[in-house]
Amino acid sequence: MNDAYLRLIERLKHRHLIGSVQGLLGWDEQVNLPPQSADFRAEQMATIAGLEHAAASDGRIGEALAQLEAAIDDLDSDQQIVVREARKDFDRVTKLPAEFVEEKARHSSAAYHAWTKARTDREFEPYAPFIAKHLELAKREADYQGWGDRPYDYAIELHDPGFSAEVIDGLFAELKAGLIPLVQKIDAAAAAQSSQSPLRGFPVDAQREFLEEVTAKLGFDYGRGRIDVSPHPFCEGSGTDVRMTTRFQEDEPLDSLFSSIHETGHGLYEQGLPMADHATALGQHAGMAMHESQSRMWENQVCRSRAFWQHFEPRFRELFGGQVKGVSSDELYREINAVRPTLIRVDSDEVHYNLHIILRFELEKKLFSGELAVADIPTAWNDGCEELLGCRPQHDGEGVLQDVHWSGGAFGYFPSYCLGNMIAAQNWNAVRQEMPDLEGDFAKGEFGRLLEWLRRNVHQQGKRLSALDRVEVVTKAPLSPQPLLTYLAERYGSLY
Amino acid sequence: MNDAYLRLIERLKHRHLIGSVQGLLGWDEQVNLPPQSADFRAEQMATIAGLEHAAASDGRIGEALAQLEAAIDDLDSDQQIVVREARKDFDRVTKLPAEFVEEKARHSSAAYHAWTKARTDREFEPYAPFIAKHLELAKREADYQGWGDRPYDYAIELHDPGFSAEVIDGLFAELKAGLIPLVQKIDAAAAAQSSQSPLRGFPVDAQREFLEEVTAKLGFDYGRGRIDVSPHPFCEGSGTDVRMTTRFQEDEPLDSLFSSIHETGHGLYEQGLPMADHATALGQHAGMAMHESQSRMWENQVCRSRAFWQHFEPRFRELFGGQVKGVSSDELYREINAVRPTLIRVDSDEVHYNLHIILRFELEKKLFSGELAVADIPTAWNDGCEELLGCRPQHDGEGVLQDVHWSGGAFGYFPSYCLGNMIAAQNWNAVRQEMPDLEGDFAKGEFGRLLEWLRRNVHQQGKRLSALDRVEVVTKAPLSPQPLLTYLAERYGSLY
Repeated sequence: MNDAYLRLIERLKHRHLIGSVQGLLGWDEQVNLPPQSADFRAEQMATIAGLEHAAASDGRIGEALAQLEAAIDDLDSDQQIVVREARKDFDRVTKLPAEFVEEKARHSSAAYHAWTKARTDREFEPYAPFIAKHLELAKREADYQGWGDRPYDYAIELHDPGFSAEVIDGLFAELKAGLIPLVQKIDAAAAAQSSQSPLRGFPVDAQREFLEEVTAKLGFDYGRGRIDVSPHPFCEGSGTDVRMTTRFQEDEPLDSLFSSIHETGHGLYEQGLPMADHATALGQHAGMAMHESQSRMWENQVCRSRAFWQHFEPRFRELFGGQVKGVSSDELYREINAVRPTLIRVDSDEVHYNLHIILRFELEKKLFSGELAVADIPTAWNDGCEELLGCRPQHDGEGVLQDVHWSGGAFGYFPSYCLGNMIAAQNWNAVRQEMPDLEGDFAKGEFGRLLEWLRRNVHQQGKRLSALDRVEVVTKAPLSPQPLLTYLAERYGSLY
Repeated sequence: MNDAYLRLIERLKHRHLIGSVQGLLGWDEQVNLPPQSADFRAEQMATIAGLEHAAASDGRIGEALAQLEAAIDDLDSDQQIVVREARKDFDRVTKLPAEFVEEKARHSSAAYHAWTKARTDREFEPYAPFIAKHLELAKREADYQGWGDRPYDYAIELHDPGFSAEVIDGLFAELKAGLIPLVQKIDAAAAAQSSQSPLRGFPVDAQREFLEEVTAKLGFDYGRGRIDVSPHPFCEGSGTDVRMTTRFQEDEPLDSLFSSIHETGHGLYEQGLPMADHATALGQHAGMAMHESQSRMWENQVCRSRAFWQHFEPRFRELFGGQVKGVSSDELYREINAVRPTLIRVDSDEVHYNLHIILRFELEKKLFSGELAVADIPTAWNDGCEELLGCRPQHDGEGVLQDVHWSGGAFGYFPSYCLGNMIAAQNWNAVRQEMPDLEGDFAKGEFGRLLEWLRRNVHQQGKRLSALDRVEVVTKAPLSPQPLLTYLAERYGSLY
C-alpha cells in the first residue's frame, strides 16, 4: 500500500487512541469520580484534550494528506473517503489553538459539576455564567473555522454533518404541523384514563438482571462492553470497550429498562462499526442523528411492541410476580406505551418527545442569534414548555436544568434526537418492507435479522455517506417526518 | 519566585497529570475492563506511557534544571530537594528511549492478561515467555541507566531508593535467624489447636458495610477516594482520587476486611501527602518500603490488636450475629491472629509472611544473576517453599502464579513488603514511646492521634529523605529487624 497512506493511518490511530482515553476519563467522571476530585479531573481532561489536539494537528498528517491529495486517483474509493474526512478533521483541528481546546475541556469539566450542583439546588443563576461562557466558546470556535456568521450551523455540523438550522427548520415545521393535532387527540383520550403507573417496588437487583438479559438478547456483546450506573444514562466507547450506563429507581422500572435499551441501541452501533477502521471515517459513525436513530428504533419500534412483550412478559412476571400481580397483559402493554405529558424529556412518551426537542432547538437558535439572553432562558423555557406541552415547570430543576448537554458545550445536539426519530421511523418502514414478518422474530425473542440489516445498511457503512444521503440510499426517499407521524398515529391511535 | 523554578514546576505538573491518567487506566484495567478489550487497553497504555515519557524528558525540564543547578544556593532547602529529585528523574527518563518505554507498557498489559489466564489454567509454561521478556527488559533498562553490572540493584532502587540487594541481604539474614526458631515454636503450638476457621457464610453486602465503616473510622476520606472489587487488591492514585480495591468471599470475611485495611494504610499515606506538591518530591512518597510500612502498621499493629476489637466487636456481632453465634470473643481474637502456614502470601499470617518474601527475594536475585532460568522457577519456588514454610505447592496456581507483580515487570518490589514490616514495627515502638496510652484510643474507636503522628512524621515529609534516613530520624536508630522480631514474639507468644 501507498506509503503516505500508511503514515496517515498511523497518525490517525495514535490520535484515536488518545481520544479513546479522553472518552474513558469522561465515563469515569460520571460513574466513579470521588466527589472532591472534580477540579483535578478537570485538569486531567484538559491535559489529555491538549495532547489529543496536538496529535490531531500533527504536521505529519498534513504532509501525508498533501501527498495523497496530489495523486488522489491512485487511491481506491474507500481510501479516498478516508483522505476526504481526514482532511476535514485536520483543517478543523488546525484552525483551533491548543489553548482554546484545553480551555474548553477544562470549562466543560467545571461546568458539568456546576450543573449537577445547580440541578440539586434547583438554582439556575449560579450555573448561568457557565452556559454563557460555553456560548462564547462555541461562537469563538465557529469564528476560528470561518463560520463566524453561522455559529449555530457550525454547532449542528459538528454533530450532524450535512444538516443545518434551515434544513432542520423545514423538517421540524412539517413535523410540528402533523404532531400538534395528533397530540391533542391522544391527550384528550389519555386524560380519560388512569394517570398513575401501577408499577411500584421493583427490587434493583432483579431490574438489573432483567435488563442485562434483554440487552444481551438484543445483541449487545458483554464481552466487549459493560453497563454501570450514572445520574444521566449515556454510552461511551467503541469496538471492544463500549460502556453504557443506566440508573435505578424502585418505582420506575420501565425507566431503567428503556434507558438501557436506548443505550444498547447506541452500543450495538458502536460494536458494529468496522473494528479495524476505528481510526478512520470507514469505522466511525455517521453523526448523532444516525446514532439516535439506532437507539430510538430499538427502544421504541422494537421494544415497545406487542411482539417484544409477547416474548419477554413471562420472564418479567417470573422476576416481578408480586409487583405485577393485579396488572393484566393489556394493562402492562398500555403502561409501557403510556402517554402522559411530562416536563422531563427523558421521561417523555414517544408522542410528546419531539415537542421537547423542538422547544430546545428554538431556544438554541435564539441563544446563538442573540435574541435570547442566557439570564432569560428559564422564562423562555417555561413559556415554551407551556405553549408546546401544556404544562409549566414549577422550578428550574424540572425545566432548564434537567439536561446535561449544555454543561458540556453540546449546543446543536438536541435536534439529533428528533432527527433520529425520523430516521428510525423511515428505516423501520424500509426494513419491514424487506421483511414483513420481522415482528414474528421478536415474539420468539430473536433479533438477529434486524441487527444484521442494521449492520449491513448502517453500521458497516461507517461515515462513507452523510446521514441524509444514507437514509436516501437505504429507503429510496429523502428524509421526511411523514413516516414518523404515520408510525405514531398507528401505534398510539390503536391505544388512545 | 525564581522563573526557572516556576517553569520546572509547570513541566513537572504536566507530567504528573499524564502519569495520573496512566494510573487510572491501570486501575480501570483491573476493575472494569471488558474481557475482550485487553489488546486495545495495551495499546492505550502504551500510547499514554509514550506521552508520559515525552513529557518527562521534555528539554525544557533539562534547561530549567541546568539554570537552577548553576545557582542552587538561591533556592531554599525544599526547593533544592525538588531540584535534586527532578534531576534524578530527568536523567533516568532521558536515558530510556521512548520506544523502550512504550514496549514495556505494552508488554506489561499483555503479560497481565497472560498471567490471569495462566493462574486460572494453573499453567506456568505459556506465561514463562512473558516473565523472560520482562527480565530482558529490566536488564536492558538497567543497562540504559549505567547499572548494567547491577541490574537487580537498579530494580530495587526503582522502588526503594537507598536500598540494595546487599543491604537487604544483611537485614533479611538477621531477620531469618530470629524468625525461624520463633516460627518453629509457634507452629508446634498452633498444630495443637484447631486448623479450621469457624467463620462461614458472611453475606457480601454486610462485609462491605463493615469494612467501609472501619476504613472510614481509621481516617480514609471517601470524599477523596473509593473502594471497588478486583481480583488482586491494590491502591492507586493520590490526593483527591485514591482508589482502593478488595475482593469478597463469603467464607473469608477476614480476608476482605484486612486486605481493605491494608489498602487503607496505603490510601491514608496518599491522602496525607502534601496535596499542592504532588508533582514534586515534596508531595511524593518515600518508596514502597515506607508505603508498605503504612499499610502493614494499620493492618497488623492496629487492627489485629485486642483494643481495636474491643471497640469493633459489638458492631461485628450486630452485623454477623448468626455467623459468630458460637464463637467467643477470645476465639474471635485468636481467629484474627490465627497462625496457619499457607502457600499463599496474601493469605499468610504475620509470623510466616516474611518467609514468603525471603523466598521471592532469593529467587529474584538468582534470576538476575542468571543462576536460575525462567523455565526452572516453578521447581525452585516449590523447593524454597518446602524449605522455608514446610509445605509444597500442588500446582503453580498456589505457587509461582499467585502474585501479579512479575507480570508488570515489578522485580525488586517484593522486598518492600518485608522492609515495610520492619519499618512498621520500629515506628510502632517510637509512637508508643511517645504515647504509651495509644491503644486506649483504639478501644474507643479513635485513631486520630496515630494518624496525626504518621501525617507529621511520614506523610507530610514527602520524599525529603530516603526511607532508611527517615526511619533513623523518627526512631533515633538505624533500621533493624529486631523490633519486628520482638513485636511478633510478644503478640504471638501470648497466643501460642
